[in-house]
Amino acid sequence: MKAFKATFDAAFEEDTRGLARAYSPFIGEEVNRFVHIHQGPEDLVAKVKLLRKLSHKVGTCFQRCVGWDALNTLYIVTGKIAEREGRKEYFNRFLEYLKYVQRRDLALAGAMTDVKGVRTLRPSEQPNRDAYVHVVEERADGIVVRGAKANITGVAVVDEVVVMPTRAMTEKDAEYAVSFAIPLDTPGVKVVVGRQLNDARRLEGGEIDGLPYAFNHEGLLILDDVFVPWERVFLYKDWRWASQFVEIFSNYHRQGYAGCKSGLGDVIIGASYGLARRLGIADKPHVQEKLTEMAFLNEAMYSAGLAASWEARKLLRDGGWWVNPMYANITKHLVARFPYEISRLAHDIAGGLLGTAPSEADFRNPELRPLLEKYLQGVPEFPAEERLRLLRLLENTSLSVAYLIESVHGAGSPQAQRISIQRIYDLQRAEAIASRLAGLKAEAPADAKAEPHRPAEAER
Amino acid sequence: MKAFKATFDAAFEEDTRGLARAYSPFIGEEVNRFVHIHQGPEDLVAKVKLLRKLSHKVGTCFQRCVGWDALNTLYIVTGKIAEREGRKEYFNRFLEYLKYVQRRDLALAGAMTDVKGVRTLRPSEQPNRDAYVHVVEERADGIVVRGAKANITGVAVVDEVVVMPTRAMTEKDAEYAVSFAIPLDTPGVKVVVGRQLNDARRLEGGEIDGLPYAFNHEGLLILDDVFVPWERVFLYKDWRWASQFVEIFSNYHRQGYAGCKSGLGDVIIGASYGLARRLGIADKPHVQEKLTEMAFLNEAMYSAGLAASWEARKLLRDGGWWVNPMYANITKHLVARFPYEISRLAHDIAGGLLGTAPSEADFRNPELRPLLEKYLQGVPEFPAEERLRLLRLLENTSLSVAYLIESVHGAGSPQAQRISIQRIYDLQRAEAIASRLAGLKAEAPADAKAEPHRPAEAER
Amino acid sequence: MKAFKATFDAAFEEDTRGLARAYSPFIGEEVNRFVHIHQGPEDLVAKVKLLRKLSHKVGTCFQRCVGWDALNTLYIVTGKIAEREGRKEYFNRFLEYLKYVQRRDLALAGAMTDVKGVRTLRPSEQPNRDAYVHVVEERADGIVVRGAKANITGVAVVDEVVVMPTRAMTEKDAEYAVSFAIPLDTPGVKVVVGRQLNDARRLEGGEIDGLPYAFNHEGLLILDDVFVPWERVFLYKDWRWASQFVEIFSNYHRQGYAGCKSGLGDVIIGASYGLARRLGIADKPHVQEKLTEMAFLNEAMYSAGLAASWEARKLLRDGGWWVNPMYANITKHLVARFPYEISRLAHDIAGGLLGTAPSEADFRNPELRPLLEKYLQGVPEFPAEERLRLLRLLENTSLSVAYLIESVHGAGSPQAQRISIQRIYDLQRAEAIASRLAGLKAEAPADAKAEPHRPAEAER
Amino acid sequence: MKAFKATFDAAFEEDTRGLARAYSPFIGEEVNRFVHIHQGPEDLVAKVKLLRKLSHKVGTCFQRCVGWDALNTLYIVTGKIAEREGRKEYFNRFLEYLKYVQRRDLALAGAMTDVKGVRTLRPSEQPNRDAYVHVVEERADGIVVRGAKANITGVAVVDEVVVMPTRAMTEKDAEYAVSFAIPLDTPGVKVVVGRQLNDARRLEGGEIDGLPYAFNHEGLLILDDVFVPWERVFLYKDWRWASQFVEIFSNYHRQGYAGCKSGLGDVIIGASYGLARRLGIADKPHVQEKLTEMAFLNEAMYSAGLAASWEARKLLRDGGWWVNPMYANITKHLVARFPYEISRLAHDIAGGLLGTAPSEADFRNPELRPLLEKYLQGVPEFPAEERLRLLRLLENTSLSVAYLIESVHGAGSPQAQRISIQRIYDLQRAEAIASRLAGLKAEAPADAKAEPHRPAEAER
Repeated sequence: MKAFKATFDAAFEEDTRGLARAYSPFIGEEVNRFVHIHQGPEDLVAKVKLLRKLSHKVGTCFQRCVGWDALNTLYIVTGKIAEREGRKEYFNRFLEYLKYVQRRDLALAGAMTDVKGVRTLRPSEQPNRDAYVHVVEERADGIVVRGAKANITGVAVVDEVVVMPTRAMTEKDAEYAVSFAIPLDTPGVKVVVGRQLNDARRLEGGEIDGLPYAFNHEGLLILDDVFVPWERVFLYKDWRWASQFVEIFSNYHRQGYAGCKSGLGDVIIGASYGLARRLGIADKPHVQEKLTEMAFLNEAMYSAGLAASWEARKLLRDGGWWVNPMYANITKHLVARFPYEISRLAHDIAGGLLGTAPSEADFRNPELRPLLEKYLQGVPEFPAEERLRLLRLLENTSLSVAYLIESVHGAGSPQAQRISIQRIYDLQRAEAIASRLAGLKAEAPADAKAEPHRPAEAER
Repeated sequence: MKAFKATFDAAFEEDTRGLARAYSPFIGEEVNRFVHIHQGPEDLVAKVKLLRKLSHKVGTCFQRCVGWDALNTLYIVTGKIAEREGRKEYFNRFLEYLKYVQRRDLALAGAMTDVKGVRTLRPSEQPNRDAYVHVVEERADGIVVRGAKANITGVAVVDEVVVMPTRAMTEKDAEYAVSFAIPLDTPGVKVVVGRQLNDARRLEGGEIDGLPYAFNHEGLLILDDVFVPWERVFLYKDWRWASQFVEIFSNYHRQGYAGCKSGLGDVIIGASYGLARRLGIADKPHVQEKLTEMAFLNEAMYSAGLAASWEARKLLRDGGWWVNPMYANITKHLVARFPYEISRLAHDIAGGLLGTAPSEADFRNPELRPLLEKYLQGVPEFPAEERLRLLRLLENTSLSVAYLIESVHGAGSPQAQRISIQRIYDLQRAEAIASRLAGLKAEAPADAKAEPHRPAEAER
Repeated sequence: MKAFKATFDAAFEEDTRGLARAYSPFIGEEVNRFVHIHQGPEDLVAKVKLLRKLSHKVGTCFQRCVGWDALNTLYIVTGKIAEREGRKEYFNRFLEYLKYVQRRDLALAGAMTDVKGVRTLRPSEQPNRDAYVHVVEERADGIVVRGAKANITGVAVVDEVVVMPTRAMTEKDAEYAVSFAIPLDTPGVKVVVGRQLNDARRLEGGEIDGLPYAFNHEGLLILDDVFVPWERVFLYKDWRWASQFVEIFSNYHRQGYAGCKSGLGDVIIGASYGLARRLGIADKPHVQEKLTEMAFLNEAMYSAGLAASWEARKLLRDGGWWVNPMYANITKHLVARFPYEISRLAHDIAGGLLGTAPSEADFRNPELRPLLEKYLQGVPEFPAEERLRLLRLLENTSLSVAYLIESVHGAGSPQAQRISIQRIYDLQRAEAIASRLAGLKAEAPADAKAEPHRPAEAER
Repeated sequence: MKAFKATFDAAFEEDTRGLARAYSPFIGEEVNRFVHIHQGPEDLVAKVKLLRKLSHKVGTCFQRCVGWDALNTLYIVTGKIAEREGRKEYFNRFLEYLKYVQRRDLALAGAMTDVKGVRTLRPSEQPNRDAYVHVVEERADGIVVRGAKANITGVAVVDEVVVMPTRAMTEKDAEYAVSFAIPLDTPGVKVVVGRQLNDARRLEGGEIDGLPYAFNHEGLLILDDVFVPWERVFLYKDWRWASQFVEIFSNYHRQGYAGCKSGLGDVIIGASYGLARRLGIADKPHVQEKLTEMAFLNEAMYSAGLAASWEARKLLRDGGWWVNPMYANITKHLVARFPYEISRLAHDIAGGLLGTAPSEADFRNPELRPLLEKYLQGVPEFPAEERLRLLRLLENTSLSVAYLIESVHGAGSPQAQRISIQRIYDLQRAEAIASRLAGLKAEAPADAKAEPHRPAEAER
């Protein structure tokens, strides 16, 4: 809840106000950046910079990126349908919805990942027909949808949720090619919040063990025959456009990980350094080496995200600024690996007490407290409580769903990035380059104008 | 508790009985291997094989290795003092204690790691004089000790605890060079059990979320002026022998990690494979690649431990079988790295639901249950509950203190292994080898009989 | 030589003309980009893009980057001395030299790395006074310098060489704080070209084994009492500015590695893919995984370089566009690791024949040729000679000084980047972020305006 | 040649005599271990220890292991055919051949890898019928064979070559299921020696650049209708036994890599340390870290090989001692990765001069020599020539076919090990272990007697 609130506070706090606001040409005034449609590469750069700063404030996922990326995705996909096919209805509906959201600064979840049933089957082939969200009834005033979306970030706290298709579809899957927005309190919507590591400790309250800083919600969104009025339907059985949804959304979201996860990395590096100082080892060469390695890995993730932003591309005639898909995938693929390495190094520096530190209750126990203060203290100028607090913070960031599991699976699991990288990287072009150098006669010279890697065209 | 109990059950269960028992020449009968003094390389090999199997039974640390390694360490150190210096008192006391322990199959904790205060200062230089356990009074019938030992595995469940010095000492540190054994209920002993990830969930009860399988205890042992009778004192101000304690104990313990952590690795690989089957992806090439990589990393740790065992050395005239220190360090250093990689791969296979799966309470809720059974099911022949159970098991093994933090810090943090490796590996010998090949005239030929790496002599 | 020539040809070839030329405000006309002073972030981005493309044309280092980076460094350092201290002489001399170079499109080497003698001693402390290049005589018309510079890229083919100091200096080192430019045929200049892997094969001639594509020169530049006229002296005993030289130059050069090494990576990936096709294994899942991993590593290096370029900073009032030093260091540190991994994967795909393929002479032998054509052929549509050519290309790129050793040591060895990363990354700021989250009372809140990482100020 | 000779010298040199000789029960006397049939785990351990020491003497591959492993493979395979099928002819022939080889201490090459044509096709499916070695004619006195074997180590120097099938076969492939031994000078045998990195330098002669230490031969063996008498035929169209050949041989050979490659690692670590001392940086923490990392990686490979040896298994009633296949595969898979990492670290320590050091000719040039001696010297007590010699040694070991490409592809490429690991590691058993812990009802309890990993049965 606190994490979520930070996305609103950021627009008013001195250090983030500049990044957290942006001018919306749609309503002609400043909006919270979390509901902004990117107007150029600078906006995409501002996104990753803002996310890094927000991670510093909350120490976990702040849960509004998915909805934000969903808005930008809808803007492009509905805009493209208008441009390519002349069908402007979706686009107009979306613009109305966008203004509604921007004016109220609504918090949105984005829901893409279906529960999927048997992973190797298409939606229409599933034994469970509801394994993917689909239309079960068409009415004059709207549609009725059924299914469930998994791993939905922020699902317990947002105002509305934007639902999108999760994969490329064929004609047979048409009823599954559906996108819409609904308030969370719509009849038929059921939310099952998932467990997070250490979640039960929160009930203990307490300033230290109650995890007063870091918690986010992710969960299952069940749509149990939910009615959606036409003005909130942004894709309806247009199965040809489903793959675009996925590609555009997922690359937006992959880019964003550069910001939030490097921000969490800063928290982890900072806690590790703070602990090293309290143990008196901050200047030891091997500790310095580890801190430097952590910073290196952290900045490597971040720099890829900056490249994905600066090398943005414009997908609509009048905007539709999207990330560079190759570097967005590189970003996320680095994020899917490096946090485990950073956590390992943090644990190394923090010492074994990270796994055996006493509870806050024991620490507050008047009989034990003097002994714990005496024996948990390292360098005398730092009270033992500081060490305990930093250990608990490090435990709950370096071993959190937000930092580890989300880094692997958010915005698509690692294999999804590998498939993207494989598709974008032009092996034929690389072979032509090598063939020319090796003096192969038969090989036609590579097209002199081709890029070293031909970017995936969203327009395909 | 269950984990701990397994060490006793193993001696009676069909699949482990052979490994879990051994003949003790000290009392002339079979004993539980966890109180056995190794009689040859085969015993050391049996240790790692037993530990791997026990991990399969409990899914966490079973908490008796430290005490076992402490017994073997005391056997060698007191034995060496007797052999080298003719002082047989420690050795005789220890043998009496050993028989006492073997006859009763007592569970022992081993306590080595002091709280250490300022890490860069010796015990006698600390601002807090009690930062290392030390003798505060000598009496006719025994000694009084004060201090605290951290990260003590099994501290809440054992019968007795064996205390050992944690580092090399100088003459000024003599009062800190002390080793002894005490029952846990000795006056002045205070135990503060540390928190474990997800510990609070256990209070919820429940078959799934209550973590019915895996839990171990680690914590802080405070010795608040505790009296120890002379017959339980195994080292007293003999500061010259402190470094031997550390070296012998830590290498025993480093070897053992080959068994318990690869056993946990089997659990994690098995849970990942089980989940992959329930998602219908077990045969996908990238999933097969990941499972194979996990098996590779797991068996690499194990094979180093086997080498450390088979290449054992004899430190006493009539026994004192110790591990090969180089390979014991290699084992532990691999263990300090690979589990994070194995966990990452497990999370990759398991899918994002690992971080967002619903609670058992929600799953038991009669209204939600049919929906959850419907939407959490993958391949139809497996009920959703199996998936939930495997996810929860994977969460609580792959993200546990036992598998991650203990793998980094147990038996000494990674830097301790690096220092050992650096000391054992003979750089001068390697330079001589290279110099001869390069035709360097000046370089004296390397001693033709020297080993490629000269083993650390415990006798130093 | 061919590699070097490519830098001139690029300005005329269709696919690189756009990137390879730039408008110079100093002479008011288009120049070869290799002598251009960067006028904004776009120029820095163009640099890495050009370098990647040139690597495709030559398959090795093209040897003009160092001189180019030296020009831009001199522009900033002499410009700063003018701005800060009002001493405009160096700047004016440099501008004259720049115009001279731009008008003639001169090829420059940059010489920074001294031979250094005992690495742990400063220049003035060395037993060999000439271990660093220094002034041995001051004359009315110029100075006389002595010493040697090591690892000088392109030293055998350039027109002139720009000499720069290699480290921070103290007042005692003043005579070593010297920068100047000289034609390579100046009296007293001696060049000793170093060996490259497989260099002797070139003498065999031959289209395949004679390495007709890839060769670069690196070597030792000895300055045996060389006279330099004042108009070519750009720093003279101004020891306080020596560290700036190093920092500004090395970060320019670190950024550049994103381009040239990812370009070589494309060649290696292309050769691997070409070989996989000839073996009939290009579609095997494990081969696809390896190719994707190579592309991922390659693009990760490149994306960091793009970030270093786009996040450029302006160091002079009217220009002096420099790279972002954090991301430049990240770039180079990735480059110091990933090529070994890429080479390993390439070797894996290529098969063992990479190390055992017959010589061109054997292949041309009329008796052997039919047998070799028969037995070295994989998939029938590709002649065996193509496979042999690709193997030889892969050998001489994936196991080359340019791809491996230069990637480790160019622009400073890995430890130099680590020191930079450690200095730039703000650990105090990170600790403050963590402390605030952990609720530490004592910790002053971090300066709200500070950047998550405070960039190294060249102005220090 | 020198490398090869070392295998004979070892039997007489003081430091290796013990390891290099063994008692052969077949001829009742001591033999060179390189023609010995292993009589127990100790012999397998002695193998890896001997290979490590021999690497120290030669700095490259010594080329007799393949033939040695081929002998032990033939012993088991022909022995099994005798035991299982009662056909003793192959076994008797082999024993005669073995005695012949042992009495003469013959040097053997082993030839397994066929040229293979299209990799995805079986021998009988190839467009080129000769892509695998096969029988083309059966005569009264023997057979005629045709085909070619690639990557044959030592092919230019051995006395005889033992040919074995390279893959599992079906009945249609029967003519390809053939094993035999022939002297290298048999009519129709053609050898094409492959190129090695820097091979052409050898022609320069010279003590430094002429690579007086390290060179090995690998190449292509062409069998152009070669006659083999029946007494040298050890398998003839018995296609069912082909897969055993591969599995038994390759695991023997995988185990051996623990010795030879860790021995090369010692040379590389020693050269790096020697260079660090000459630069005055041997005590710098980051250099110590790198040397320790190299030692760690090197000993990890070695320890896996020891485990593969100690955990040997007996495949025949009266012997046939084979390695543990899981650990043999772990060994080789570590070897397929770590040498690239060790080389990278070596290059890091050695400095950029590794890639730019002058030629011996320049160093011998009387005019240049004083300058080179002056400028290449680091720490004064070491002459510059020592540094040059160590650099050249490091170049020719750390960037050699023997250390890199052979480490990837020798004894089967990495994918072959992965397939073996996947087959040996029992995923079903691991799932059963996890299922029991997770409380899955449906899952049958794992067979209590099953091994944690069920070893591959060669007997299948």
